[in-house]
Amino acid sequence: MNSSATSVLPSGLSATQATPARGEEDALTSLMAQVGGDLEACNRTIVAHMDSPVALIPQLAAHIVAAGGKRLRPLLTLASARLCGYPGAADGERHIRLAACVEFIHTATLLHDDVVDESVLRRGLASANAVFGNKASVLVGDFLFARAFQLMVADGSLSVLSILSQTAATIAEGEVLQLVTQNDLSTPDARYLEVIKGKTAALFSAACQVGAVVADRPVAEEMALANYGMNLGIAFQLVDDALDYTADQAKLGKTVGDDFREGKITLPVLVAYRAGDAAERAFWRRTIEASEQADADLDEALRLMARRNAISETLVRAAHFASVAKRTLDVFPESRLRRTLADVADYTVSRGR
Amino acid sequence: MNSSATSVLPSGLSATQATPARGEEDALTSLMAQVGGDLEACNRTIVAHMDSPVALIPQLAAHIVAAGGKRLRPLLTLASARLCGYPGAADGERHIRLAACVEFIHTATLLHDDVVDESVLRRGLASANAVFGNKASVLVGDFLFARAFQLMVADGSLSVLSILSQTAATIAEGEVLQLVTQNDLSTPDARYLEVIKGKTAALFSAACQVGAVVADRPVAEEMALANYGMNLGIAFQLVDDALDYTADQAKLGKTVGDDFREGKITLPVLVAYRAGDAAERAFWRRTIEASEQADADLDEALRLMARRNAISETLVRAAHFASVAKRTLDVFPESRLRRTLADVADYTVSRGR
Repeated sequence: MNSSATSVLPSGLSATQATPARGEEDALTSLMAQVGGDLEACNRTIVAHMDSPVALIPQLAAHIVAAGGKRLRPLLTLASARLCGYPGAADGERHIRLAACVEFIHTATLLHDDVVDESVLRRGLASANAVFGNKASVLVGDFLFARAFQLMVADGSLSVLSILSQTAATIAEGEVLQLVTQNDLSTPDARYLEVIKGKTAALFSAACQVGAVVADRPVAEEMALANYGMNLGIAFQLVDDALDYTADQAKLGKTVGDDFREGKITLPVLVAYRAGDAAERAFWRRTIEASEQADADLDEALRLMARRNAISETLVRAAHFASVAKRTLDVFPESRLRRTLADVADYTVSRGR
Repeated sequence: MNSSATSVLPSGLSATQATPARGEEDALTSLMAQVGGDLEACNRTIVAHMDSPVALIPQLAAHIVAAGGKRLRPLLTLASARLCGYPGAADGERHIRLAACVEFIHTATLLHDDVVDESVLRRGLASANAVFGNKASVLVGDFLFARAFQLMVADGSLSVLSILSQTAATIAEGEVLQLVTQNDLSTPDARYLEVIKGKTAALFSAACQVGAVVADRPVAEEMALANYGMNLGIAFQLVDDALDYTADQAKLGKTVGDDFREGKITLPVLVAYRAGDAAERAFWRRTIEASEQADADLDEALRLMARRNAISETLVRAAHFASVAKRTLDVFPESRLRRTLADVADYTVSRGR
């Protein structure tokens, strides 16, 4: 046990304990414990700033924001700022406000994603569009996006505004590219990677980078954290794409097989399609490209993925990106928080097992 | 004739000529002529910055941005900056870039509006959502919104960022409030006014205010232009709401009666409903509140509006706001551009006649 005297972790929740699966799952718990006070302050900031005289806005926002989620992105901002020594002697709160910005941008994209994907479940609950309608989801997404920029303006850093406005554009580009590749089995891996970098990893990257910016650290540390976030985000989305075929619905918090039904091009499908024989390829072309699906097709898809090791191949690639993410942290001196961030990379992959 | 030697207007298109209807309609032509070079530069900036490696983005954006429209909002930014003496000796271009930001924000909201309203026509052409689908329209709207903020960050003024991020939040609030009041004939006028201030006038106001900010003018001038834009925008939307019942489709550039079919609460409906007898009120409750409409109902709505002077009452109110807009310009010394901006307020109302 290496939990220090200052640890707020319950005994036995050290970030570096021996049992990998459990230790990795606990990485998030450890991270939350180490920046717990900041996260609570961030949650208060989120609730305070999603208010509006138009009552439907906080109602709908609360449905998605307050419904929980892991708060992984704001956690990354808070932890990155701490890793960079912020706040120092002064009791700075910029990282808290900017972590809230990151969560607002994430929430805005979730609202629009669920409209675009016609999702009915989100984090195990009815999605906002299913409860409040597509129109309100689009508009409240716009509101949260604008509110994020208002918060950044109040913070006053043009560097932060530059990073997050660029990220917002990149997210939209990734989402549009995903729309364009839908149903297209000839999508190269590189294009799929561009999609997940845009729609997911860019915000992970920005969330981490912003932590270094508020701490006013040298560009090498800023870039290290940006790269950590980018590789972590890619790993995270690869695992998400695997889970869409393998998780049980309660664990996933959304409908299993959504990607399949939408004809979304993800790595498990690309691997299974390319490794398949003629009959298998015909199956994928019918179900994904022509969108002709019968009830039993999802089970058949899972069977073919198992035959072609498509899920395990996806997880191997995720593990590669997670390992790159961990290495980028080497620029920082050894610390409990650095170890925990490395464990978070492992946790990201272990979710898929 | 008062066209000066430097005028780029064709002979006979002076902004102050005597015939009101014609003169007012020419106000926009005169405005375009006076800031014509700036507007062309702004259009080039718009086209350059809506580019993306994801080809669907410039394709969809071009459909709506390049399809024209009056460019009224960027024109207001350009004219306001000039009215404030910007650029002075130096050949500044900030107003051009910020005018492009204003148009991007406007375009993003149009894309999302058309999805929310399920519109099929926009500026006389098939709407982007009708051609490219709702999903792409939502996402490209997000992209243009993010791109607007990237341009503002490149400009580097936190004042401008503050004004336009606040405006973006206000627009979303106005749109959500409109959604909430839909089908509700008990909506008070004040609430309807909040809706149109939010969804339309706020951006007119910001467009003008930003012109004063780049010129670094005293707060009195900044506020005067903000108020000019706010009152102009209210007048503009009141007339739009009248035109939705009276214009011919070719002139309106969108489907006549859209507001009626959607059960949108606008002043013509509120006036006709409140002034109506029992039978008329029953008609409005059936068609607007219960959304039960037959083919002949739009004609009946127009007949009842005529009987209760609902359109003329709406235009009288628009004229009031236009006249307030004109008075706010008194803080500026007499000039051709000031007169043209005053004429633009009259033009806004004369569109409805």
